[in-house]
Amino acid sequence: MKILILHGPNLNMLGKREPEVYGSLSLDRINQILYDDAQLLGVELKIFQSNHEGALIDEIHAAWQQQDGIAINPGGLTHTSVALRDAIAAVNIPTVEVHLSNIHKREEFRHRSLIAAVAIGQISGFGVESYRLGLRAIVGYLGDR
Amino acid sequence: MKILILHGPNLNMLGKREPEVYGSLSLDRINQILYDDAQLLGVELKIFQSNHEGALIDEIHAAWQQQDGIAINPGGLTHTSVALRDAIAAVNIPTVEVHLSNIHKREEFRHRSLIAAVAIGQISGFGVESYRLGLRAIVGYLGDR
Amino acid sequence: MKILILHGPNLNMLGKREPEVYGSLSLDRINQILYDDAQLLGVELKIFQSNHEGALIDEIHAAWQQQDGIAINPGGLTHTSVALRDAIAAVNIPTVEVHLSNIHKREEFRHRSLIAAVAIGQISGFGVESYRLGLRAIVGYLGDR
Amino acid sequence: MKILILHGPNLNMLGKREPEVYGSLSLDRINQILYDDAQLLGVELKIFQSNHEGALIDEIHAAWQQQDGIAINPGGLTHTSVALRDAIAAVNIPTVEVHLSNIHKREEFRHRSLIAAVAIGQISGFGVESYRLGLRAIVGYLGDR
Amino acid sequence: MKILILHGPNLNMLGKREPEVYGSLSLDRINQILYDDAQLLGVELKIFQSNHEGALIDEIHAAWQQQDGIAINPGGLTHTSVALRDAIAAVNIPTVEVHLSNIHKREEFRHRSLIAAVAIGQISGFGVESYRLGLRAIVGYLGDR
Amino acid sequence: MKILILHGPNLNMLGKREPEVYGSLSLDRINQILYDDAQLLGVELKIFQSNHEGALIDEIHAAWQQQDGIAINPGGLTHTSVALRDAIAAVNIPTVEVHLSNIHKREEFRHRSLIAAVAIGQISGFGVESYRLGLRAIVGYLGDR
Amino acid sequence: MKILILHGPNLNMLGKREPEVYGSLSLDRINQILYDDAQLLGVELKIFQSNHEGALIDEIHAAWQQQDGIAINPGGLTHTSVALRDAIAAVNIPTVEVHLSNIHKREEFRHRSLIAAVAIGQISGFGVESYRLGLRAIVGYLGDR
Amino acid sequence: MKILILHGPNLNMLGKREPEVYGSLSLDRINQILYDDAQLLGVELKIFQSNHEGALIDEIHAAWQQQDGIAINPGGLTHTSVALRDAIAAVNIPTVEVHLSNIHKREEFRHRSLIAAVAIGQISGFGVESYRLGLRAIVGYLGDR
Amino acid sequence: MKILILHGPNLNMLGKREPEVYGSLSLDRINQILYDDAQLLGVELKIFQSNHEGALIDEIHAAWQQQDGIAINPGGLTHTSVALRDAIAAVNIPTVEVHLSNIHKREEFRHRSLIAAVAIGQISGFGVESYRLGLRAIVGYLGDR
Amino acid sequence: MKILILHGPNLNMLGKREPEVYGSLSLDRINQILYDDAQLLGVELKIFQSNHEGALIDEIHAAWQQQDGIAINPGGLTHTSVALRDAIAAVNIPTVEVHLSNIHKREEFRHRSLIAAVAIGQISGFGVESYRLGLRAIVGYLGDR
Amino acid sequence: MKILILHGPNLNMLGKREPEVYGSLSLDRINQILYDDAQLLGVELKIFQSNHEGALIDEIHAAWQQQDGIAINPGGLTHTSVALRDAIAAVNIPTVEVHLSNIHKREEFRHRSLIAAVAIGQISGFGVESYRLGLRAIVGYLGDR
Amino acid sequence: MKILILHGPNLNMLGKREPEVYGSLSLDRINQILYDDAQLLGVELKIFQSNHEGALIDEIHAAWQQQDGIAINPGGLTHTSVALRDAIAAVNIPTVEVHLSNIHKREEFRHRSLIAAVAIGQISGFGVESYRLGLRAIVGYLGDR
Repeated sequence: MKILILHGPNLNMLGKREPEVYGSLSLDRINQILYDDAQLLGVELKIFQSNHEGALIDEIHAAWQQQDGIAINPGGLTHTSVALRDAIAAVNIPTVEVHLSNIHKREEFRHRSLIAAVAIGQISGFGVESYRLGLRAIVGYLGDR
Repeated sequence: MKILILHGPNLNMLGKREPEVYGSLSLDRINQILYDDAQLLGVELKIFQSNHEGALIDEIHAAWQQQDGIAINPGGLTHTSVALRDAIAAVNIPTVEVHLSNIHKREEFRHRSLIAAVAIGQISGFGVESYRLGLRAIVGYLGDR
Repeated sequence: MKILILHGPNLNMLGKREPEVYGSLSLDRINQILYDDAQLLGVELKIFQSNHEGALIDEIHAAWQQQDGIAINPGGLTHTSVALRDAIAAVNIPTVEVHLSNIHKREEFRHRSLIAAVAIGQISGFGVESYRLGLRAIVGYLGDR
Repeated sequence: MKILILHGPNLNMLGKREPEVYGSLSLDRINQILYDDAQLLGVELKIFQSNHEGALIDEIHAAWQQQDGIAINPGGLTHTSVALRDAIAAVNIPTVEVHLSNIHKREEFRHRSLIAAVAIGQISGFGVESYRLGLRAIVGYLGDR
Repeated sequence: MKILILHGPNLNMLGKREPEVYGSLSLDRINQILYDDAQLLGVELKIFQSNHEGALIDEIHAAWQQQDGIAINPGGLTHTSVALRDAIAAVNIPTVEVHLSNIHKREEFRHRSLIAAVAIGQISGFGVESYRLGLRAIVGYLGDR
Repeated sequence: MKILILHGPNLNMLGKREPEVYGSLSLDRINQILYDDAQLLGVELKIFQSNHEGALIDEIHAAWQQQDGIAINPGGLTHTSVALRDAIAAVNIPTVEVHLSNIHKREEFRHRSLIAAVAIGQISGFGVESYRLGLRAIVGYLGDR
Repeated sequence: MKILILHGPNLNMLGKREPEVYGSLSLDRINQILYDDAQLLGVELKIFQSNHEGALIDEIHAAWQQQDGIAINPGGLTHTSVALRDAIAAVNIPTVEVHLSNIHKREEFRHRSLIAAVAIGQISGFGVESYRLGLRAIVGYLGDR
Repeated sequence: MKILILHGPNLNMLGKREPEVYGSLSLDRINQILYDDAQLLGVELKIFQSNHEGALIDEIHAAWQQQDGIAINPGGLTHTSVALRDAIAAVNIPTVEVHLSNIHKREEFRHRSLIAAVAIGQISGFGVESYRLGLRAIVGYLGDR
Repeated sequence: MKILILHGPNLNMLGKREPEVYGSLSLDRINQILYDDAQLLGVELKIFQSNHEGALIDEIHAAWQQQDGIAINPGGLTHTSVALRDAIAAVNIPTVEVHLSNIHKREEFRHRSLIAAVAIGQISGFGVESYRLGLRAIVGYLGDR
Repeated sequence: MKILILHGPNLNMLGKREPEVYGSLSLDRINQILYDDAQLLGVELKIFQSNHEGALIDEIHAAWQQQDGIAINPGGLTHTSVALRDAIAAVNIPTVEVHLSNIHKREEFRHRSLIAAVAIGQISGFGVESYRLGLRAIVGYLGDR
Repeated sequence: MKILILHGPNLNMLGKREPEVYGSLSLDRINQILYDDAQLLGVELKIFQSNHEGALIDEIHAAWQQQDGIAINPGGLTHTSVALRDAIAAVNIPTVEVHLSNIHKREEFRHRSLIAAVAIGQISGFGVESYRLGLRAIVGYLGDR
Repeated sequence: MKILILHGPNLNMLGKREPEVYGSLSLDRINQILYDDAQLLGVELKIFQSNHEGALIDEIHAAWQQQDGIAINPGGLTHTSVALRDAIAAVNIPTVEVHLSNIHKREEFRHRSLIAAVAIGQISGFGVESYRLGLRAIVGYLGDR
């Protein structure tokens, strides 16, 4: 079972960026935790981060017929990118949407996710745990099929 | 560590109700799975279901200084009950919001959660797994404090 | 053929409550008229009134596999209760929505019915006749199946 | 007692038009059923169909001081015609609004009826039975006066 | 100088229709008053009433290069007819919009006029005087050019 | 018969201000025309202009039991002043609302008049003629009572 | 003179609940203060609290022809309960609406009160004093009749 | 293959009407061009224009089982006529929607097409070429089936 | 303890203005009642009325470091004056907002108070009693500090 | 005559992506068809696809004074990219907007095109034919100039 | 070159008013800084502050043909005064809009400026520096003409 | 003191692009002016332009702990890019937002800036002077800290 982890814009700044909101772990550290979890769950992980919407779309296209599931934190693109949404629909790979902060209690414009309509489910608000729960969720989902 | 699991209106119908949407497990079966998970996680569980908003609020009040965390699936009250939201704020117990279906891809009026503003985070779309991930999330959250 | 008649909040005040809007018949009198109609139509009637959303939901759940059809006047819950809507969807019993007054010519917030999406049809504006037409409609609908 | 039955745009296509939505009875057959019902109820019926908003308005004007009640299915004009609404208000004849399909569970723009504000009540969702219930409703209403 | 007076839907019911709102003068009487005014003002009048949007549009087209000005009371079409608006724009004849009642203090949906954007000005609320002022206004406007 | 003419903010700049929109007549010249019209109509005129909302309200209050009618061009206050509206309601003097330009074809925010709800009628779009028609309208209205 | 004091959902948590928002007095203490005030004002008090919308409605119905006035703090139901509003309208007892916090400066959704339309007046923002002022207001209102 | 070309309100004024917006060709000339194109494409054309919504609906009904495809320019009815939309749905004939001007860059209210939901596709902005492309599109569509 | 009472636009017309809405007491009489109350409460009162937004703001500025509390009835400015709101915020004097009528059951545009966000609380609907309760509320508030 | 064909995000997935919506032709195949059409029409084609908004903008800039016309399918950027819109406005090259699916009958958020305001016209709903018609449209447009 | 500096409502309270938001400089001190800057820039300054909308409008009118440019901080009137906007349009003097705080990050209702449509540009968020930059901007603008 | 100047999409087209809106200076020329100003102000400048949202975000990240302030013209991304906004928040560098044209008087969708919430202030409408004032503003701001 092969899972693609996608980190959207600004997630490379984790640990540096507003630590009171996003926690103090760096992205490298989070990725290490996810690799460890993946090993325990017996799945193969590919991790990719970009601040470029286009690069994220390219990566999703590359996953077509290569990856079994996706866990994506689309960052600010969550609320604005129809193209990202269409990319996930295009490859038709089961996808879980994760967010570090609870987007539903932040500014009004962060309450709407364009990605939700093409995702199995959404996990938001648990910091790095959102990723770990998301990984577990997509693995569980694929295992049940 | 003591956790309260709250099931809102219509969740007693699980297994009977629209199985293509909500799965075929009965609520008793789900509760059994949660008790098993709780045992593994070493936490004590109290589970309560009601179709009455008032009864759910009463139960939340009763949890004050008795329970360490709450995982709640508010069902249809998610989108309409300011009173339920105020109850969670009143007892000030860390709370995780879970949903069986992905509310963000259903009817427009299901996209807004009044509960989100008083919850740590939200998990939606994974069927019974939403509860299991929610239990794990609240336990993890309390463990980190 | 067994039909459940549900009266929502405040309908117990009929005859007392704003008679110029809702007519001068008491709920008991209306129920007697409906029992008489039911006898003529050859169907069995169960009638239930409550001011509690939860009690109405419990009653709908109890109707599962027990009643063939429902005629409901959800009163003020028409416009606010997602939980009631979900209850009707959960039991999947053909349901007719009735209103004493014509909700579409009253205050703006009474124009939207959350129940309509799970009902066969809606009858509003004919006072007690709304119930009688509703009973006839649900019986006709079930007879046609 | 003289009742005018008005069929708005596209109702002449009944039986031909989307039978899964509107049923397979032709308009002629429906009219025959209504004439039969009228005979039983002891009322005189005039039936008129047009795809022209103006012709419907002319007919309503012609009913002034000639007809005792109106049962109208305004079709698509329900949601768009202020002129039709004003015509009903102008003649001041008690009017019942009927719809074959349950307009409150269809597209958003079909939820608003401009006609409702000038009608006694509304019946929608019961196919041809909507007309029959509507006829009964207007006759009952006029009988009560 | 030749002026076309256009009466939209339901204005043929004047005197009969809601006299407390629209006054007790019949349309014939109003037209007579307008003919008298026209004679005093030294202009030629053509008057046309229809309940058919299409007939009003045909009449406007017929006025092209035949009439110098238009005074129109579009009735309920004021708020709904893009086609009527486009007709006035198409013939490019100076047009005054008149209303018997003050549309800006009636229901919300009567506050917007689709016609206003193609009219010189609007006069509303003075009953039959609205027409007389409108006739004077269009004559004055044409005289100033 | 005594009529108060009120000119709201910026009308003192007439002739100077955007002549392509508001015409080239000065306010003094317009007032002279109105005095002449008043003489012909046999009514007494009081004319007042101010850029101060409060001064206009004071003047309206002063008209209480002193003036028989008001013709007001509220200028920019039309769309923003609840206090001005309340002043007209408070003195309960028949009032006509006039506008030089056709407010219904200008910016969206100029389409709503807070004054309309307390005015007999509204005349807009005819430049100085709006005042003259307005004077005639209020005199006619008072004459009819 | 008999007055019913109604406390809506979560008011039983007063003193415990967010004291920085709602103050540190318990509900029992507040009720004692109100009983004392009532004695001074020479009125009889009945006090009822519930977290159940239905129980509040039942209590309002029970007040019919038994109580002379109502002072209600509907809590979170203020913004969501049409049924509660209809209950007050049904019994037609003069009612004052009170709120501990100033609802008009809190979240947007707390600005709208469904109850206001059936209440004499509203007092909000003065903590326990809101109740005391409300009691005084209803007593004064009844005394003036 | 038989194609019906429908021209909505005001299109008879082409060439006369706002030539800077709609071009200088008359409708007769456009029709001639379309007949020529049809001959080249080997299809039979029926062309109909009306300013009457009802007449357009009648024509669409007449096309039932007579015509293979429709290309319609609904003019101002595009944005307002639910009845026209329902007519196209009723006959279930493949339909292409064409517009001379680019409706999506004009006034806000012209951006929404009620017809689009029942059309294969939409072509707007190319003047008379919109019709020619539309004819080609419907012929291509029918050829592919 | 020194309290400033501010009466906004049109309140000088009390007793004259719509007595069925605002009662028959003149402003002088109300002020006398408030002076009497103030004497009983042992506080010093300054009372000011103006129809000029600017004069009210000037008065609020003058209260800076001179008055301990404010009770204001902003009249129509309640819903429109950001400048008045900013004035209260600028002087940072505890302020109570009062209204004679219950603004929350009047026209939609009267439901929003710009002042509420800078006031301790709001009292509306009790006629002259609103002022008296407001005076008591501000005195109580200042006493508690 | 030189024409630039621009394919926006996800169009490289054609044939793979949701074939029931977008057809089974690959982008290469579509491009080949367009090259063939171009040869017949005697125009030179440059074709570019990217999932990167920035790359599309760069390409549009590069077209400045190099290309005579543009046919663009902006994909998901249609509804979200002000920058793309500004790019087309900046180079001021005649542009046609094309869409494979009929965006006006899909989700609400796909109905608005930010690109439309800077395009000659729009063609949507005809699958690959949309491109072919778009190419023909831009060539015709340029030929007419 | 003569420049008019206009300070709207509440700016006389600078230094006293919410210093954490607006800084601790008094208006006199700010004016002194501006006079110094003006001297350096070689322009003549007239400075005027008022809390009265009408007085500001009067001052703008007085500037007609007397002043070359205006820099205005309209304070709370920014969002509410159509009359002020019309005054600037009336005199047609180049105007720069300045704000001490960044209005675009404050309450929603402060995001819209009615003044912007008649101003060259807007500077907001830099405290007293907003004025200095605004003065420089208007001088630069006038110098370029 | 080190300042980063960021030019968003399409600004590389300056001088070529709509010169009547954006002026005739090329970006190179503007940059030269800014370098000159920087020298006078004694600050070090880094200038970067990109049409790629991602590249702008990368550049902002690179500024972390390297640059003291940012002046950004986000172009079309102003209104659409949450990711850009989050990038500025992430690096927490004081930022000034500049616009060549006055965005508040252009299309409605250009009135909202997503960037404003994370910027000190905003300068718009002065062409190249907006940049110069923005540079001065950020330097002044940093100097004051």
